[in-house]
Amino acid sequence: MQEILDFFSENDHFARHCGIVLLEVKPAWAKAKMEIQPHHMNGAKTVHGGAIFTLADFTFAAAANSQGQLALAINTSISFFKPTHGNTTLYAEAEELAVNRRLGYYQVKITDNKQQLVAQFQGTAYRKEKSLLQEP
Amino acid sequence: MQEILDFFSENDHFARHCGIVLLEVKPAWAKAKMEIQPHHMNGAKTVHGGAIFTLADFTFAAAANSQGQLALAINTSISFFKPTHGNTTLYAEAEELAVNRRLGYYQVKITDNKQQLVAQFQGTAYRKEKSLLQEP
Amino acid sequence: MQEILDFFSENDHFARHCGIVLLEVKPAWAKAKMEIQPHHMNGAKTVHGGAIFTLADFTFAAAANSQGQLALAINTSISFFKPTHGNTTLYAEAEELAVNRRLGYYQVKITDNKQQLVAQFQGTAYRKEKSLLQEP
Amino acid sequence: MQEILDFFSENDHFARHCGIVLLEVKPAWAKAKMEIQPHHMNGAKTVHGGAIFTLADFTFAAAANSQGQLALAINTSISFFKPTHGNTTLYAEAEELAVNRRLGYYQVKITDNKQQLVAQFQGTAYRKEKSLLQEP
Repeated sequence: MQEILDFFSENDHFARHCGIVLLEVKPAWAKAKMEIQPHHMNGAKTVHGGAIFTLADFTFAAAANSQGQLALAINTSISFFKPTHGNTTLYAEAEELAVNRRLGYYQVKITDNKQQLVAQFQGTAYRKEKSLLQEP
Repeated sequence: MQEILDFFSENDHFARHCGIVLLEVKPAWAKAKMEIQPHHMNGAKTVHGGAIFTLADFTFAAAANSQGQLALAINTSISFFKPTHGNTTLYAEAEELAVNRRLGYYQVKITDNKQQLVAQFQGTAYRKEKSLLQEP
Repeated sequence: MQEILDFFSENDHFARHCGIVLLEVKPAWAKAKMEIQPHHMNGAKTVHGGAIFTLADFTFAAAANSQGQLALAINTSISFFKPTHGNTTLYAEAEELAVNRRLGYYQVKITDNKQQLVAQFQGTAYRKEKSLLQEP
Repeated sequence: MQEILDFFSENDHFARHCGIVLLEVKPAWAKAKMEIQPHHMNGAKTVHGGAIFTLADFTFAAAANSQGQLALAINTSISFFKPTHGNTTLYAEAEELAVNRRLGYYQVKITDNKQQLVAQFQGTAYRKEKSLLQEP
């Protein structure tokens, strides 16, 4: 698992650009956080849906790839339950709902630092034959 | 429309952080672009789904707010059709599918610089009574 | 709660046409079942996605309306994890994820008679001011 | 194409149970209709979301299988734009957005007999190696 955690922490440039930190990866499960900064905000002075989505999508990717088989997102959806006004850290926890040879289904809950549920994300991944860590 | 375009260009900090430029806003319609940079990439060496989503979500927000009534995203979904390998500019075009007093439904097509369809996004917005530009 | 259960059991003609039985309604929660019959099958000899969706959507509606305020579906999504080959009963259990004055978010798990997860549904409802049971 | 149209018309028992008629199938495209009857209604006296979904899902399946390769739904979403009060016929038109070896993405527009857009559906299908018409 450490290998997967290191891989995502080092190679996911956009997650780094967004200040996202991968906290833990277990088989079919992952957790990450994003400390809210002024550059995460939108014009309505709340955290941008794109920032919340990116946190969720990255955590989903870590969970979907946690067993080393390369998995790519095909469909995702997210519902936003309440606006986040900054001055907090968001956490995302991804768990596997179902998996078969080619497809994996994941759910990600996004909470703030008061453990309030801010958003929920679903993602479907297509599992390729090759390994995540293998050179192309 | 210029007022809305200026508002989003100046006040959406996360879109700016991601290098997104709002190109045009018309009633119930908007277009934006994102020139792909190394910081948009994920661990699989393709453009991060979060970056593509942010481009789409921002364009959706501009279209949903184009008539001045404050509209907030409640649900969104996105399907990714093909990986984008960098060295390109992505474009998003948002159009309104339906609207009533409280809800607006939008669709966003994301294409690359060869006009290939890369992803498609759907978003539902809740329309508040107050104006986007009015002070809180 | 008995009033809500009776209302849905008597007045939802399409759920009846599909052989769906509402088992229980509690605040923000509902459970229903559908015994699979030959008329639920599709051309691939598995239970039709439309039948599974209808079971989930009906259970979602019962949960969303469980406190008497009229709530209408605006967006729903469903992921199908495995085909169902008949000779079973499907169960749907709907729970509330979040709610505010105008919007409610629900999740429905659909399982077969071996407690295997067959599909998962998400639904967002718009809450009107009037009561479900009140005459129009 | 006639072979595909006949296959779906004869073998989709749930679509028949719902009164759905497949009107036309072309490569990557299909159209169907459902004349609204009292048994399509829900407790709020509007056409049940499950009936509208079934019409859309069936049309999606016909389009996704239109070239003879067996395709199964993995994810679908639908947005409902306005309630339908009966005394009308609903039409669904499915078109392909993108396709690759294993996955196909479709969009379905649902309109009433006044050509008003009632709902929009998106579906993703997984394409198996075997043919739709081949014996298992």
